[in-house]
Amino acid sequence: MAYLVHRRQLTVEWGHCDPAGIIFNSRFFEYFDWSTALLFQAALGLTKPEMQATYDADMPLIDARATFLKPARFGDVVEIASTIGEFRCSSFDVQHRLSNRGELAAEAQETRVWVGRTELKSKPIPDEVVECFKKSG
Amino acid sequence: MAYLVHRRQLTVEWGHCDPAGIIFNSRFFEYFDWSTALLFQAALGLTKPEMQATYDADMPLIDARATFLKPARFGDVVEIASTIGEFRCSSFDVQHRLSNRGELAAEAQETRVWVGRTELKSKPIPDEVVECFKKSG
Amino acid sequence: MAYLVHRRQLTVEWGHCDPAGIIFNSRFFEYFDWSTALLFQAALGLTKPEMQATYDADMPLIDARATFLKPARFGDVVEIASTIGEFRCSSFDVQHRLSNRGELAAEAQETRVWVGRTELKSKPIPDEVVECFKKSG
Amino acid sequence: MAYLVHRRQLTVEWGHCDPAGIIFNSRFFEYFDWSTALLFQAALGLTKPEMQATYDADMPLIDARATFLKPARFGDVVEIASTIGEFRCSSFDVQHRLSNRGELAAEAQETRVWVGRTELKSKPIPDEVVECFKKSG
Repeated sequence: MAYLVHRRQLTVEWGHCDPAGIIFNSRFFEYFDWSTALLFQAALGLTKPEMQATYDADMPLIDARATFLKPARFGDVVEIASTIGEFRCSSFDVQHRLSNRGELAAEAQETRVWVGRTELKSKPIPDEVVECFKKSG
Repeated sequence: MAYLVHRRQLTVEWGHCDPAGIIFNSRFFEYFDWSTALLFQAALGLTKPEMQATYDADMPLIDARATFLKPARFGDVVEIASTIGEFRCSSFDVQHRLSNRGELAAEAQETRVWVGRTELKSKPIPDEVVECFKKSG
Repeated sequence: MAYLVHRRQLTVEWGHCDPAGIIFNSRFFEYFDWSTALLFQAALGLTKPEMQATYDADMPLIDARATFLKPARFGDVVEIASTIGEFRCSSFDVQHRLSNRGELAAEAQETRVWVGRTELKSKPIPDEVVECFKKSG
Repeated sequence: MAYLVHRRQLTVEWGHCDPAGIIFNSRFFEYFDWSTALLFQAALGLTKPEMQATYDADMPLIDARATFLKPARFGDVVEIASTIGEFRCSSFDVQHRLSNRGELAAEAQETRVWVGRTELKSKPIPDEVVECFKKSG
């Protein structure tokens, strides 16, 4: 299954970098969390608050991992490509690839659970949500 | 009126510093927000969540300012001394002085409002809260 | 003197907000630092690293202040308008106005010094830099 | 091989939490980076800047992963226990376990490379560094 890929460009800011002049590791995880919200917005046509209200759902992270292959420095314009790795009944994986000057600089995967906002218990991801990520063509 | 002064030591971490090797400016404001919570905890004997529950109150920031006099570098152990500048009916000022190796490195002032948590409207600061900050002596 | 105004839109991200659901105060200062870099880039046509190399200069912050007038919540699309308040011999002020749904939500001013990167001593801001900020018309 | 375990307590701050009231994921990675610096300081008796100077070495992260088992809320006092998972010739793993009220809340592993600071190339970890982490019986 090929799912929708969301791509965005981002300039690495001074405040994102550490004394070595490269992106501080926790900032990558901020970028990816942010990219997941943009991926869902692109697929569903809803902002994150709208999505939360429409489906009475949130999607907390239960696992995050990243491999850092090449440094990215402040002022670099990087591209993050994000897509769904797999939808399961009530959890899913999001994959992110961060490229810098055309070369892969970091790869990451997030695992998230689809939960009701009131009880914070997992519940099935609606089929209509999954359908929105399926690429036409 | 001399109010209680709360002092804490803090090591400047790698992830707090920018490519110039010094504390990135927004981190100072994190430090100060955190020091205000510790000052209230020292005065009231309540953690911030306990204080919020006890007084049905929160204390959002309406003004923050800081002057940066000397750089502090990663690995430096700095001291932050925090105290109340002034209590007014439903707002108050907190003053922070950050020292590095015995020299003043940054000075800051926060202005906060005492609000009810439900309506988010300002309300009078209870006398008993103010009393807790008055130093015996 | 009317100087160039740089405007940008920014979506308030989940990770920028605190448990009250509004932008955490230190994030405003990140936004403003970032907007200053974008303002210089718009005026000079140089990214921050290019500017640093071209003029052998950096511009550390010596004073920052912000007034928070209205909350901004996660998912809000805010606009930040940034301009020079005043150029002095070797220091300058940058003013930022953050609007949310057409209303002013925060105002801020940064004071920065123009310094040589090697000695970290203040030096005069080149006339050609100042000229780039003067609006035609 | 049992290596030195470094334990620290940390209060979860308001600014570390997201609108759900729990630690925002990127903050965990800040905590762990910070804990690694403290682990090395405990083992070597050197601060991170001293360690960098003594060994002309830095230790950039090439892989980070975390599993989030239970939420931690603002005001919670958590404990982070950090230890070396494995030392290889020029890379090593650091393991972190974050507990909240006696229950494991997050587990993480960092993989770092030992590099020369000038060339940023990997080089062997000195035996004397490894020895410092070996617990006496």
